[in-house]
Amino acid sequence: MRLASYITHGRSGFGAVVGTGVVDMRLRMGPRFPTLLDVLRQGALDELRAGAAGVRPDYPLSEVRFLPPVVGPEKILCVGVNYAGRSDEYQDPAHDTKHPNLFFRAPGSLTGHLQPLVRPRESEQLDYEGEIALVIGKRGRRIPLAEALSHVAGYTLCNEGTVRDWLRHGSRNITPGKNFDSSGSLGPWIVTADEIDPTVPMRLTTRVNGEMRQDATTASMIFGFAELIAYASVFTTLVPGDVIVTGTPVGAGARFEPPRWLEPGDIVEVAVPEIGVLRNEVIDEP
Amino acid sequence: MRLASYITHGRSGFGAVVGTGVVDMRLRMGPRFPTLLDVLRQGALDELRAGAAGVRPDYPLSEVRFLPPVVGPEKILCVGVNYAGRSDEYQDPAHDTKHPNLFFRAPGSLTGHLQPLVRPRESEQLDYEGEIALVIGKRGRRIPLAEALSHVAGYTLCNEGTVRDWLRHGSRNITPGKNFDSSGSLGPWIVTADEIDPTVPMRLTTRVNGEMRQDATTASMIFGFAELIAYASVFTTLVPGDVIVTGTPVGAGARFEPPRWLEPGDIVEVAVPEIGVLRNEVIDEP
Repeated sequence: MRLASYITHGRSGFGAVVGTGVVDMRLRMGPRFPTLLDVLRQGALDELRAGAAGVRPDYPLSEVRFLPPVVGPEKILCVGVNYAGRSDEYQDPAHDTKHPNLFFRAPGSLTGHLQPLVRPRESEQLDYEGEIALVIGKRGRRIPLAEALSHVAGYTLCNEGTVRDWLRHGSRNITPGKNFDSSGSLGPWIVTADEIDPTVPMRLTTRVNGEMRQDATTASMIFGFAELIAYASVFTTLVPGDVIVTGTPVGAGARFEPPRWLEPGDIVEVAVPEIGVLRNEVIDEP
Repeated sequence: MRLASYITHGRSGFGAVVGTGVVDMRLRMGPRFPTLLDVLRQGALDELRAGAAGVRPDYPLSEVRFLPPVVGPEKILCVGVNYAGRSDEYQDPAHDTKHPNLFFRAPGSLTGHLQPLVRPRESEQLDYEGEIALVIGKRGRRIPLAEALSHVAGYTLCNEGTVRDWLRHGSRNITPGKNFDSSGSLGPWIVTADEIDPTVPMRLTTRVNGEMRQDATTASMIFGFAELIAYASVFTTLVPGDVIVTGTPVGAGARFEPPRWLEPGDIVEVAVPEIGVLRNEVIDEP
């Protein structure tokens, strides 16, 4: 099942994507579930699935404005330098690979599928980072490795867009460069965990204007999905709706010589066949 | 006005602290405002003030279990190394003082006044950091310095508790050491901005078992309240309820020789006369 959040006819909703349309589940599930995040928090994915079964789509996807699949989760936890070769590329001698390198993004830093990716006035160094994101479906602390994947409600994609020159403002924190409003995106939808076997490598690509920039499989991840969940949950309780963005392969624009920053009009597509294509066009901030 | 969030008789509520009691405003303000965060988001502080005026307290403070004054804000943005002398103490030659050093904490990492501060099983290096926290009352992006303080709804205190050995797991992110569940605290309440002139230095102290460990005034801050708001809002839209934790003075336990970590039974008190005293006892994780 593919689960999207969106605005249509001026109202926010969520639903199950079927072919090129969407079965609106906000109305069908009633006032207990104003958002998909509420469905996750109340453990009601089965209820959603039952309600959507066999129903014809209410709207074509072309008529909805996509939101991030979860709007305003408690936490969006991102992982730096988590694919083979990336550490060399990063040229950080202090980089420690014993533990995942984690940081938070604020919800407003990630927009939805097909929405503009915003290059802020303060920088010309907007860069893409294609990533797979996990959406947590079950609360847990100190989750054992063997149980970690059972806490995943589903998978989505992230363009973990980065304003490179603002990464280095703090000596030990990359917060500003990772948190410009709408500098990244999340979507297009969540593919529920029952449809994906995360032990089978997935191919992750990022294209800019059709040109392949990143192309790797999850087999080259340093810390796998289960390890990330187990590690993060040592210190923080993971709750339904939390998003873990699992790291980007080599090939970001910063690593070209000279760097190839995103420019207005560029189309960025992050793709994993099992999940979908997350597509955004870059604009200059109005 | 002092605004607290709490649980009493098994229900969560919020209200105005009057003397040693609290005027419960959750019932009085009705279902539009289930939490103090909703009051802030809907810009209803004046309504709260009018409703609480002249009312006798409903409960003594001794009967409530304090929550952080805002529960589940969108963002808790913390500032590292922001008091004079702290950079030397920190011994980080790469430290750049041109910009504030910002990082996020997850809401679950901060408990309320008088609640146990939890030393996790994974470490013996739990440390205190007394800080003043700003609670945002008005939405804004790229807020000019001259307008920044008008975005503050009020002031509270933070023990920005830190698990020191987990700070260094990531080369450029201190996330894990700053985010153990209930490793820090926020409170006891918010003092509304009309009662504090932030241009007059406030004295901030931290005591452990009555012994003074940190003692400084806001006059020795590197980046003042207004500068922090102006800077953070360049990249992220600040929204009502957001918390900015403004940095700690010299004197954390890590800087003693040998270090003086917190131990079960220790009482930590962060105090600013204009705001109150935030008090927590350390426990070992059950």
